[in-house]
Amino acid sequence: MAFRKFLPLLDRVLVERFMAETVTKGGIMLPEKSQGKVLQATVVAVGPGSVNQKGDLQAVSVKVGDKVLLPEYGGTKVRLDDKEYFLFRDGDILGKYVE
Amino acid sequence: MAFRKFLPLLDRVLVERFMAETVTKGGIMLPEKSQGKVLQATVVAVGPGSVNQKGDLQAVSVKVGDKVLLPEYGGTKVRLDDKEYFLFRDGDILGKYVE
Amino acid sequence: MAFRKFLPLLDRVLVERFMAETVTKGGIMLPEKSQGKVLQATVVAVGPGSVNQKGDLQAVSVKVGDKVLLPEYGGTKVRLDDKEYFLFRDGDILGKYVE
Amino acid sequence: MAFRKFLPLLDRVLVERFMAETVTKGGIMLPEKSQGKVLQATVVAVGPGSVNQKGDLQAVSVKVGDKVLLPEYGGTKVRLDDKEYFLFRDGDILGKYVE
Amino acid sequence: MAFRKFLPLLDRVLVERFMAETVTKGGIMLPEKSQGKVLQATVVAVGPGSVNQKGDLQAVSVKVGDKVLLPEYGGTKVRLDDKEYFLFRDGDILGKYVE
Amino acid sequence: MAFRKFLPLLDRVLVERFMAETVTKGGIMLPEKSQGKVLQATVVAVGPGSVNQKGDLQAVSVKVGDKVLLPEYGGTKVRLDDKEYFLFRDGDILGKYVE
Amino acid sequence: MAFRKFLPLLDRVLVERFMAETVTKGGIMLPEKSQGKVLQATVVAVGPGSVNQKGDLQAVSVKVGDKVLLPEYGGTKVRLDDKEYFLFRDGDILGKYVE
Repeated sequence: MAFRKFLPLLDRVLVERFMAETVTKGGIMLPEKSQGKVLQATVVAVGPGSVNQKGDLQAVSVKVGDKVLLPEYGGTKVRLDDKEYFLFRDGDILGKYVE
Repeated sequence: MAFRKFLPLLDRVLVERFMAETVTKGGIMLPEKSQGKVLQATVVAVGPGSVNQKGDLQAVSVKVGDKVLLPEYGGTKVRLDDKEYFLFRDGDILGKYVE
Repeated sequence: MAFRKFLPLLDRVLVERFMAETVTKGGIMLPEKSQGKVLQATVVAVGPGSVNQKGDLQAVSVKVGDKVLLPEYGGTKVRLDDKEYFLFRDGDILGKYVE
Repeated sequence: MAFRKFLPLLDRVLVERFMAETVTKGGIMLPEKSQGKVLQATVVAVGPGSVNQKGDLQAVSVKVGDKVLLPEYGGTKVRLDDKEYFLFRDGDILGKYVE
Repeated sequence: MAFRKFLPLLDRVLVERFMAETVTKGGIMLPEKSQGKVLQATVVAVGPGSVNQKGDLQAVSVKVGDKVLLPEYGGTKVRLDDKEYFLFRDGDILGKYVE
Repeated sequence: MAFRKFLPLLDRVLVERFMAETVTKGGIMLPEKSQGKVLQATVVAVGPGSVNQKGDLQAVSVKVGDKVLLPEYGGTKVRLDDKEYFLFRDGDILGKYVE
Repeated sequence: MAFRKFLPLLDRVLVERFMAETVTKGGIMLPEKSQGKVLQATVVAVGPGSVNQKGDLQAVSVKVGDKVLLPEYGGTKVRLDDKEYFLFRDGDILGKYVE
């Protein structure tokens, strides 16, 4: 996995947006688009989670490989090995597609 | 249920707004409208809930199938299999209709 | 009670504003008005309450049938069976009239 | 006590501002004025108090009959039986006069 | 003590600003001035303190008679028996002069 | 280590941005740039961490020598022995490169 | 110590900025300047610390005599015995120089 090299910190999640057309088990899935931005993505790396006020670690709610739905706004663009990824906070990811 | 595929995260609730006219047990119910938006909806999927400061999971207060009253503003439009749904935070849903 | 059908969520309280003139045990009570809005109301339905940071349920401080004094601003209009009600947060209700 | 009828909610305190001139044990006391508003008042009714994050009830720090000093701004005007009162949050009352 | 009559509430502290020139043990002390306001003052009355989230009383950190340094801004002017005092929150007082 | 002299306080992290071209084990790595600012950096000193509401020390999540990805904005420029460093809060560092 | 007379309150720290040129063990150290303000300083007095939500005292992280790096902005100017000092909150001090 090329991205074992980059470890997001705290509750950040590194995702790669779907290509224009992604063929899934259920047939061709035209990704959800908004203002030209593809809102579906795959989780490629996750941080350890954040620490709550009691000092306990709060794991993130998605795992590597999950297909998720991103909010229209927010996220930080990150270039790794010349590919474009995005960092989102776990709490900002809207939901995930359960196969 | 077509929507088992999409699982909202945290305390988010996926709803589908009523059609213009919905026939219920008690007869025809003209949905509450505000600026053309239908404010009644059916819950189609719910997230696991949010975690409070003590680290305990706080379940959402509605369940799949509930008929709820939405606030006029807020909510995120989500297209799934070419149908239009909306994501609301559990705390923003005003109330539910108890048959 | 026509309003058993609508259950406010969390710490919301459903109220119905007094009519222009309401006859009470103590004689005619001209409701408190501000900018044409009647500020006295009757509680018709209450939510379960809100959950504090420790995860304990915090019940609302009014019950169905209470006569309450509403703040001048705030509240969400809700039409139920063609009648006009208002939703307020429990914490925004100023006080109640103890017979 | 005419005001047993109105019970402020949470940590609200119902007060009646001094008249222009109030004769007290210590002789005539010209009330503190600011922009024409009398800032001294008598407490006529108090709420049960507010609930802190641990769920414990936090009683208000003044009682009926106390003479208090009000802040220049804030407060909600309330008419009861054709008399003018004001509702303040307990935490906004500046101090009280200890005889 | 003339000011036993006024008891500040919560964590408020009643102070009297130094006169233009105050003679202290160590000789004449020209008070610190900023925009004409004397920033040194004597504590004349203190509130019981504020209650933290656990419900414990948090005493104020100054006592009657302390010489303190006030911030340039903030504070509420209070006239008592025709003299001018100021109310500050305990947390806003910058420091105290330890003889 | 020249920088044992400067100890960041609380949860601050002192970093030195990569030079224009840094040769690493995996070959030449052109650092990520944004508006002329190099976003990769090496951690040169870390603070003890911050204290959470329970009074427990929360260590920072990076250590001296880590290669990290900085956010585009924020950070405080610090000159030490004529070299330019930057101070970031631990929580603002986006991620680290795991060799 | 001339400054035993002034005791900062809570988590405030009283500092004296370096002179233009300060000779230290390691030779002449030209202080870090920004917009004409010297950013290095010596701690001359510290407050007892602040109280966290559990009511525990949180000591400040610097002690009298420490050489510290100040942020560019913030701080309150305090004149004591005709000398100029500055008050900073402990949490705003960027770091300290460990000899």
